[in-house]
Amino acid sequence: MTMTGEMLIGGGAVYGKGIAFRAVDPATGREMEPAFGGGGDAEVERACALAWEAFDIFRETGLEARARFLEAIAQRILDLGDALVERAVAESGLPRPRIEGERGRTVDQLRLFAQVVREGGWLDAHIDRAQPERRPLPRPDLRQRHIALGPVAVFGASNFPLAFSVAGGDTASALAAGCPVVVKAHAAHPGTSELVGRAIQAAVAECRLPEGVFSMLFDSGHAVGTALVADWRIKAVGFTGSRRGGIALMNVAAARREPIPVYAEMSSINPIFLLPAALETRAETLGKAFAASLTMGAGQFCTNPGLVLAVDGPGLNRFLEAASVALRESAAATMLTPGIHAAYDDGVRRLTARSDVQTVARGQACVGPNQCQAALFAADAEAFLSDPGLQEEVFGSASLVIRCPEVATMRAVAERLEGQLTATVHADDADADEARQLFPTLERKAGRMLFNGWPTGVEVCHAIVHGGPFPATSDSRTTSVGALAIRRFLRPVCYQDVPAALLPEAVQDGNPLNLWRRIDGDLQSPDGKDASV
Amino acid sequence: MTMTGEMLIGGGAVYGKGIAFRAVDPATGREMEPAFGGGGDAEVERACALAWEAFDIFRETGLEARARFLEAIAQRILDLGDALVERAVAESGLPRPRIEGERGRTVDQLRLFAQVVREGGWLDAHIDRAQPERRPLPRPDLRQRHIALGPVAVFGASNFPLAFSVAGGDTASALAAGCPVVVKAHAAHPGTSELVGRAIQAAVAECRLPEGVFSMLFDSGHAVGTALVADWRIKAVGFTGSRRGGIALMNVAAARREPIPVYAEMSSINPIFLLPAALETRAETLGKAFAASLTMGAGQFCTNPGLVLAVDGPGLNRFLEAASVALRESAAATMLTPGIHAAYDDGVRRLTARSDVQTVARGQACVGPNQCQAALFAADAEAFLSDPGLQEEVFGSASLVIRCPEVATMRAVAERLEGQLTATVHADDADADEARQLFPTLERKAGRMLFNGWPTGVEVCHAIVHGGPFPATSDSRTTSVGALAIRRFLRPVCYQDVPAALLPEAVQDGNPLNLWRRIDGDLQSPDGKDASV
Repeated sequence: MTMTGEMLIGGGAVYGKGIAFRAVDPATGREMEPAFGGGGDAEVERACALAWEAFDIFRETGLEARARFLEAIAQRILDLGDALVERAVAESGLPRPRIEGERGRTVDQLRLFAQVVREGGWLDAHIDRAQPERRPLPRPDLRQRHIALGPVAVFGASNFPLAFSVAGGDTASALAAGCPVVVKAHAAHPGTSELVGRAIQAAVAECRLPEGVFSMLFDSGHAVGTALVADWRIKAVGFTGSRRGGIALMNVAAARREPIPVYAEMSSINPIFLLPAALETRAETLGKAFAASLTMGAGQFCTNPGLVLAVDGPGLNRFLEAASVALRESAAATMLTPGIHAAYDDGVRRLTARSDVQTVARGQACVGPNQCQAALFAADAEAFLSDPGLQEEVFGSASLVIRCPEVATMRAVAERLEGQLTATVHADDADADEARQLFPTLERKAGRMLFNGWPTGVEVCHAIVHGGPFPATSDSRTTSVGALAIRRFLRPVCYQDVPAALLPEAVQDGNPLNLWRRIDGDLQSPDGKDASV
Repeated sequence: MTMTGEMLIGGGAVYGKGIAFRAVDPATGREMEPAFGGGGDAEVERACALAWEAFDIFRETGLEARARFLEAIAQRILDLGDALVERAVAESGLPRPRIEGERGRTVDQLRLFAQVVREGGWLDAHIDRAQPERRPLPRPDLRQRHIALGPVAVFGASNFPLAFSVAGGDTASALAAGCPVVVKAHAAHPGTSELVGRAIQAAVAECRLPEGVFSMLFDSGHAVGTALVADWRIKAVGFTGSRRGGIALMNVAAARREPIPVYAEMSSINPIFLLPAALETRAETLGKAFAASLTMGAGQFCTNPGLVLAVDGPGLNRFLEAASVALRESAAATMLTPGIHAAYDDGVRRLTARSDVQTVARGQACVGPNQCQAALFAADAEAFLSDPGLQEEVFGSASLVIRCPEVATMRAVAERLEGQLTATVHADDADADEARQLFPTLERKAGRMLFNGWPTGVEVCHAIVHGGPFPATSDSRTTSVGALAIRRFLRPVCYQDVPAALLPEAVQDGNPLNLWRRIDGDLQSPDGKDASV
C-alpha cells in the first residue's frame, strides 16, 4: 500500500485542493514525501453526507457483524506490516519498540471492543412488563435499549499516532457503538494516518458496510476540524490534545443550533503524593522510579507525573538526589513535533526564570533537533498556593516538586488542584491515616487513583478510567480508554407497547441476542429461567 | 407546619432581603399570604458552602442509610397531609385529584430511588484482577465504581409542583446518587415549595445527615438561579422548563471556568403519526382519545400531543370531526400561571392569524381568569416543511394537524422534526410496512416511541426514558424520569493497586455490599461462586 496524500471520503480517495503539507521527521527536521492535500468545506460536506446516509444501516448491523468489522480493521492494520511501523517512527520520532507496542495496543483495543460488542452489555436492555390489571391505570409494556448517537468526529492525537489516532480508542469505541466516524487526521503524522485509514476503508468494503461508515480528512490548520464539529450531522466529538484545542471545540459544539457532547481529553499534571513513611523507607527507589516515569517517551504522555508533593526534610532531599542522578543520566529524546518541542522549551524557560522556583536537575543536553532535555524543578507550597500558573502543564519531561511544611499542607495543595486524569499516592503501612485523609480529595480530583505505582502506562481493560474532572477532560462522566468508552456514543430509547414484529432484537421476547437484561428492575442472565420474557 | 416565607439554608431558615413576592391563585388571580423574601448572593454562597461541606460525608453514606433518608422524605411529605394538597391546588390551579395523584407519584419516586440505592447497580462495580505474571508487563489490580458528581442545583418546574419540583425526580435522583441538592424553588408555587422543603429538612435532621445536604432558595427573578449555576461548588444542574430558560442555563454552565453538565428538559411537540389502515378502521376512536390526551391538565405536559400527521382524505376528516366534537365540549381549564396563560393565548393568536393554518375547532370559552381554551389547527405539509416556526411548541391544549398527500410525506416531515421526548404511531397490522419505514427516523428523533397509545402519562419505572435529542433535552444520553435518572449525577473512578484497607466497599474483596459486579469483564451475581474476589 503506497501513500498518495489523498483524503478518504467513503469508498473513494480525493486529493485536497487546499494548502498542501508534508510530514516532518522531528529527528532530522526534514520534510518527507508525499505532500498531503488539505481539505475544505466540500470534503466535510461529502464525508458528513455519506456518514449520515450510512448511519441508520450501520447502527443496526448485527453484533457479530460489527465485531467482525472491528477485527477486520485490526487484521488489516497488522497486514500493513513494517511499512506502517517505519512511517510512524519517522513521523513521530518515537522509537521503534514503542511504535510496535502501540500497534499491539491499537489492535488489542479493536479486539476488546469486538468482544464488548458481542457481549452486548452496552445495549443495557430493560423490560418492564405490562400490568393490564393495575389500578387506577394499567401499566403499558415498556422496553429500553441504547442506540448509537450518530456520526462522530474524531481528532487524531499527536502523541499516540496509532492508539489515539485514526483507528485509536475514540474510533474503535464509536464504531463499536454503531456510529460512523469522520476522522480529522493529525497533521503531524499524515502518512501513518493515510495507511491506517486505507486499512479501515478496506475493512468497510470487505464487510460490505455502507461506505460512509468511515472517512478521513486532512488539514494543516483548524478550518476542517471546526467545520466538521459544526456540521449538523455530527452528533459527538472525540478529541485528545491541548487544553486550548479542546476548549475551542467545546465552544464550537456549544454554539451549534443543536449542541453536542464533546469528549476532549486535555490537560493533566498527575500529582504524586509521597507520604512520610514511604519517603523515609525508600526515597532512593522512589526517586529513581519517578525519573524513569518522567522521562519515558520524552514525557509526552497525558499521564506524565508533572507534580510531586512531599514534606520537606531529609527524606525528600534523598528522593531529589536520587531523581537528579537518574535525570542527569537521561539522554535527550526527540519530541513529536517542532511545535511541541518549542512549547516545552518555553515552559521550561518560564519556570527557570522564576525566583520562587529552583532548578533541581536537567537531563543530558540535546544532540539533535526537537529534543527534550528533561527538567526537574522545586518550589515551596506557599509559592504554589499563591499562583495558579504553577499548575499549568508543561508537556514533556518536566516536573515540579512542592516542598510542604507538613502533611496537612499536602492536603491543602491537593484541594487546590484542578481536575486530573490520575492521582498517585506512595504510602507505607505507617502512612495509612494520612492516606485515608487524602483519599476523598483525590477521588474528587481524579479519574484514577494509584497506590505505590506510576501513572504512565494505562491498562486497556474493563475497570480502567482514563478521564477525570475538567480540565483533565471536558466530561468527567466517561472514560476514553477501556470498555466503558463505548458508552460515550450511546443514548437510551424506550419502546412503549411496540408490536413484537417491530421491536429491536435486544428487547424482544425470547432474548435472541442472549443478553443480560433487567426485567422489572432485576438483572437476569441470558440463560436464567426468569429471563423467559 | 406553617409557611413563613423563609428560605431553607441547611438546617436553618432565613427570610430573604431581596424583592418579596406572593403566590397567585390562577383560578382567581388573587395573591395569597405569606410574602416570600427573595434571596441573593449571600444565600447562594451559604447554601453552596454547606452543600460542599456535606458532600464528602453524604456521598459515602451507606446504601441502607441513604435509602432510609429517601423514604423518610417520602413519609414526611405524606405527613404534611391535606395542608400540602390544598396549598398546591391553590398555587397551581390544578384539580385536587391531580395533585393527590402527583403526591403519590412523588412519594413512589422517592421510594423507587430508595430501592435503586439499596440494589447498588448504579455503583457499576468492576474488578480487573492483577496479573503479576503477565509479560512484557504485569497487569496491576484495577477496580472501578461510580461516585457522586458533587452538589447539584435543581430548578423546580411550574407544571409539576410536587413531582418535578422541590422533592421531585431531579432531587430524588441526585440525593440517591449521593449529591447534596440546592433547589431554586419555582416562584409559581413557593408555599408548596416551603412545605416540601421543610419536610426534606426534617428528614435530613432525623437521619443525622450533614445539614448542607439540602437547601432551598427563593427568587422571583433569574439572579439567584444564575448565581447558583455559576458557583464553582455546583457540579450539575437539573431543570425542567422553557427552551429559553434551559438554553440560558446551558450558556451559564458552558461559560464557567469548569463547565458542568446541565440536564434541561425543555421543548417537545410529541408528534402523533396516524397510519392509513389505523385511521381507516378507527378514526373516530382515535379522534376522541386524541382530544382527551390534548386537553388533559390544560395541556400542560411536556408530552402533550402538539402535532398530528396523517394522509389527507376521508379517514383524516373523520378523525378531525371526532376530535372537534370532543374538543368543543371540553371546558376551559385554569392554567398554572398568568404568564403561561398569556404565552398560550399568544401562540394560539399567532397560529389563528396565519393564512396557511386553518382553525379546526376550539374548546369551550373561558369563564374565569387564566383559562386555557383548547385549540385544534390544521395545515398542509408544504406549509409545515417551508416554515420551521410551525414546529414551535405552544404550551397548553393546542395542536396542529398536518395534512400529508401521501405516507412518504409523513416520513419527510418526520425527518425535519427537531428532537422530541416522544413519538407515537397509530398502526394496524396492515400498516406494518409503513411503520417499519418510519421506525428508524422516529428512533433518531425521540427518547420514547409509543404504539397505539398517547404520550401523556409517563410511567416511573426502570425502562422508561423521559429524554430525547435537543431541544427536547440538553443531553439525550440520559432520562429525567425513572431509575436510570440516577446516572446523570455519577462519574466513574478507577482504583489501581489501592490497599485493601482503603478500598471502597463496592469494590472490596468479599463483596460486602452484595453487588452484581463485573470481574474481568464478566457479570457475576452477588451469590455467584466466581464472585469470590
